[in-house]
Amino acid sequence: MATAVEALAMQRAVVLAARGLGSTSPNPVVGCVILDPDGEVAGEGWHQRAGGPHAEVHALRAAAGRAHGGTAVVTLEPCNHTGRTGPCAQALIAAGVARVVYAVADPTPTATGGAATLRAAGIDVEGGLLADAAARGNEAWLTATPRQRPFVTWKYAATLDGRSAAADGTSRWITAPQARAEVHRLRAESDAVLVGSGTLRADDPQLAVRGVDGDITQPLRVVVDTEATISPDARVLDSAAPTVVAVAQDADTDHLKAEVLRLPRAADGRGLDPHALLSALYQRDVRSVLLEGGPTLAGAFLAAGVVDKVIGYLAPALLGAGPAALADAGIPTIERALRLDVADLQPIGPDIRITAYPSPDHLVRSHPSPDHHPSSRALRAHPDAEAAEEN
Amino acid sequence: MATAVEALAMQRAVVLAARGLGSTSPNPVVGCVILDPDGEVAGEGWHQRAGGPHAEVHALRAAAGRAHGGTAVVTLEPCNHTGRTGPCAQALIAAGVARVVYAVADPTPTATGGAATLRAAGIDVEGGLLADAAARGNEAWLTATPRQRPFVTWKYAATLDGRSAAADGTSRWITAPQARAEVHRLRAESDAVLVGSGTLRADDPQLAVRGVDGDITQPLRVVVDTEATISPDARVLDSAAPTVVAVAQDADTDHLKAEVLRLPRAADGRGLDPHALLSALYQRDVRSVLLEGGPTLAGAFLAAGVVDKVIGYLAPALLGAGPAALADAGIPTIERALRLDVADLQPIGPDIRITAYPSPDHLVRSHPSPDHHPSSRALRAHPDAEAAEEN
Ligand SMILES: NC(=O)c1ccc[n+]([C@@H]2O[C@H](COP(=O)([O-])OP(=O)(O)OC[C@H]3O[C@@H](n4cnc5c(N)ncnc54)[C@H](OP(=O)(O)O)[C@@H]3O)[C@@H](O)[C@H]2O)c1
Ligand SMILES: NC(=O)c1ccc[n+]([C@@H]2O[C@H](COP(=O)([O-])OP(=O)(O)OC[C@H]3O[C@@H](n4cnc5c(N)ncnc54)[C@H](OP(=O)(O)O)[C@@H]3O)[C@@H](O)[C@H]2O)c1
Repeated sequence: MATAVEALAMQRAVVLAARGLGSTSPNPVVGCVILDPDGEVAGEGWHQRAGGPHAEVHALRAAAGRAHGGTAVVTLEPCNHTGRTGPCAQALIAAGVARVVYAVADPTPTATGGAATLRAAGIDVEGGLLADAAARGNEAWLTATPRQRPFVTWKYAATLDGRSAAADGTSRWITAPQARAEVHRLRAESDAVLVGSGTLRADDPQLAVRGVDGDITQPLRVVVDTEATISPDARVLDSAAPTVVAVAQDADTDHLKAEVLRLPRAADGRGLDPHALLSALYQRDVRSVLLEGGPTLAGAFLAAGVVDKVIGYLAPALLGAGPAALADAGIPTIERALRLDVADLQPIGPDIRITAYPSPDHLVRSHPSPDHHPSSRALRAHPDAEAAEEN
Repeated sequence: MATAVEALAMQRAVVLAARGLGSTSPNPVVGCVILDPDGEVAGEGWHQRAGGPHAEVHALRAAAGRAHGGTAVVTLEPCNHTGRTGPCAQALIAAGVARVVYAVADPTPTATGGAATLRAAGIDVEGGLLADAAARGNEAWLTATPRQRPFVTWKYAATLDGRSAAADGTSRWITAPQARAEVHRLRAESDAVLVGSGTLRADDPQLAVRGVDGDITQPLRVVVDTEATISPDARVLDSAAPTVVAVAQDADTDHLKAEVLRLPRAADGRGLDPHALLSALYQRDVRSVLLEGGPTLAGAFLAAGVVDKVIGYLAPALLGAGPAALADAGIPTIERALRLDVADLQPIGPDIRITAYPSPDHLVRSHPSPDHHPSSRALRAHPDAEAAEEN
């Protein structure tokens, strides 16, 4: 049984882990707290970026000699393999820790086995502490890795009557500055942000992170623009962040200096194939995508069953006319509505933020072919594990 | 200064008052708790129905001799006039109470002065205790009386993308049983429920209260049906509750056995004039109206500035197609969006309930001619007083 002090340390480790969101892919985010033999915090660390030291190594360095005989509290099972940095299990053994408490087992075949290695070295090992919270904090990586495609969060802003713009097309601003600031934080925590050519033409968004404190990594900006209609002067092509323009295999891109990603067209003929796009992004180490719309692209992604999470900012306002926040998602009748489970409901300034996940029941009905993958244990620790598995 | 015991008694009185919602019009709802000289609860009462005894009289009866030297705690300033029942100020004096604590001053010219009468009889009188909560509990009456039109609550149900039905028109059920049960409670608490002819044709709703415990009064069912197209077999014409069919002055109603209300057409030619309809309902002692849609009628009422409160049930579901929850409300551009202030946000089963009031700023902008009326003091005690006054 983990102690109350260990549970507090794990809470802290989950918070530390989150600092890495958007910067560690293709690795998970990991947080670690080292307790000395008296249970005092001796060191903290988190995995800051892919290729950099793991959380345990940072925390052990900070703890120095105080780790000896102490406890390492870590959000993910310590790794056992030698990747770009040495295995953490060995580092923990070398530091002389007496006990390791982790939250979520590592589902990766190459990394798994850290717990066994630690036990073999005589260390007391316990897994599963605050596993739900830690899995939620790592949801993108835990979902993306087994599926070999990024975790997709669709973010939208709408009025209470579901409009994303007024009748004349104006949409600045539906939500208040607080919600808009949060979207920059969401971008910073994502590996890539994605919009369709319609949004590009209507809004010419920059899609870079602005106004977020701390050491952030700009996300990859991805534009889905089948015929490469993007203007060379589009703001999304500025130097604030890297950009990829996804186009059809036969699109004429001579006018573009931007990086181009050639993809097959969607089977139904509307734009590009969402699955092909996500696979290509996964190949580039993208594990989390923030889908920022618009309504047409979001509808296509929902219809393809590749939206894993929905974050809606609802402004307490009514318009009575204007484009809807979501266009055709292939749903003809109420029985086939895409049902979601609300995970969180928060006032954000004057607006309301709803965080929800496609309901597992729904997914069972509409996507009857679950993948089989090695992460089932880790994902089951996650409240939305079922949704993730069935999608 | 009111004591903590008096504040608790007032909280209780506010709860008691709410039991009268839907049954007391044209009177307010009122709750009363009598404390004996030791501060123990000696009696409770509430105004149960128009024409019946006032809250104070119920409570004094329950308290009997223990009221002598005690305190009456009442949500509204005791009345001074002799209406269908005797004035409460006299009853309190006769019972020998030593102190009266009330929440909201009575704004009615004929009833006002109760506090002065009590003071003249040597009773210690204090007003304003929990005035906000008590005014909120009486919001319909406090708003309707000075404006001479009922308080209108627009209730709707929609998906997160603002659809009130799927592409094929199916809408049963967008929300879960918990939200649907609550709507029956809202109906029971309203003097009238209102729908347009479109909803009538699409859904043939009964609009009566079903499944609500306790002694409820069925609301008046009002159908807005300019050309009297309603079928004589419509469920809304059954005997479960009274019904009025509002029609144009020249509509042919020979086929209808139902009660008919003839009204002028709207100035813009769409259906009937909302102001005329509300005035006519006010004449019939209706103080609160639950506008249940559909989208067209709700848009017309919002455009006319006669919606005082919005209750939205949002189902955590997406449709991507289908009719919007709200149709044209005369808003062409984002700057003219009808902004609301969220008063409450609650999970109701799997759904979300949002309770909001048109924002005073908005109303100042779009309806620049505030009424002047005698209730300003009572309404200012109410957090949404400004909204109410400007509308
Ligand atoms: N409120 C919000 O949260 C929000 C967010 C974003 C945008 N918006 C608003 O949405 C409006 C633009 O809407 P929109 O629907 O035209 O833009 P969109 O969804 O951004 O772009 C749609 C376009 O994406 C391309 N696309 C590529 N692959 C696709 C696929 N598999 N399925 C569907 N489309 C694919 C298609 O154009 P090609 O064939 O050219 O590739 C399609 O026309 C703007 O007014 C903007 O302000 C609102
Ligand atoms: N989700 C929800 O909360 C909810 C609630 C109710 C209805 N609905 C859905 O809404 C759909 C019906 O929508 P709807 O918009 O056609 O119905 P509606 O709003 O109930 O009725 C509109 C009709 O009301 C009459 N009307 C009378 N005075 C009016 C005025 N001043 N302004 C505008 N209209 C006036 C007009 O017909 P006349 O000229 O014939 O009088 C008008 O066509 C149905 O599918 C129903 O299921 C959804």
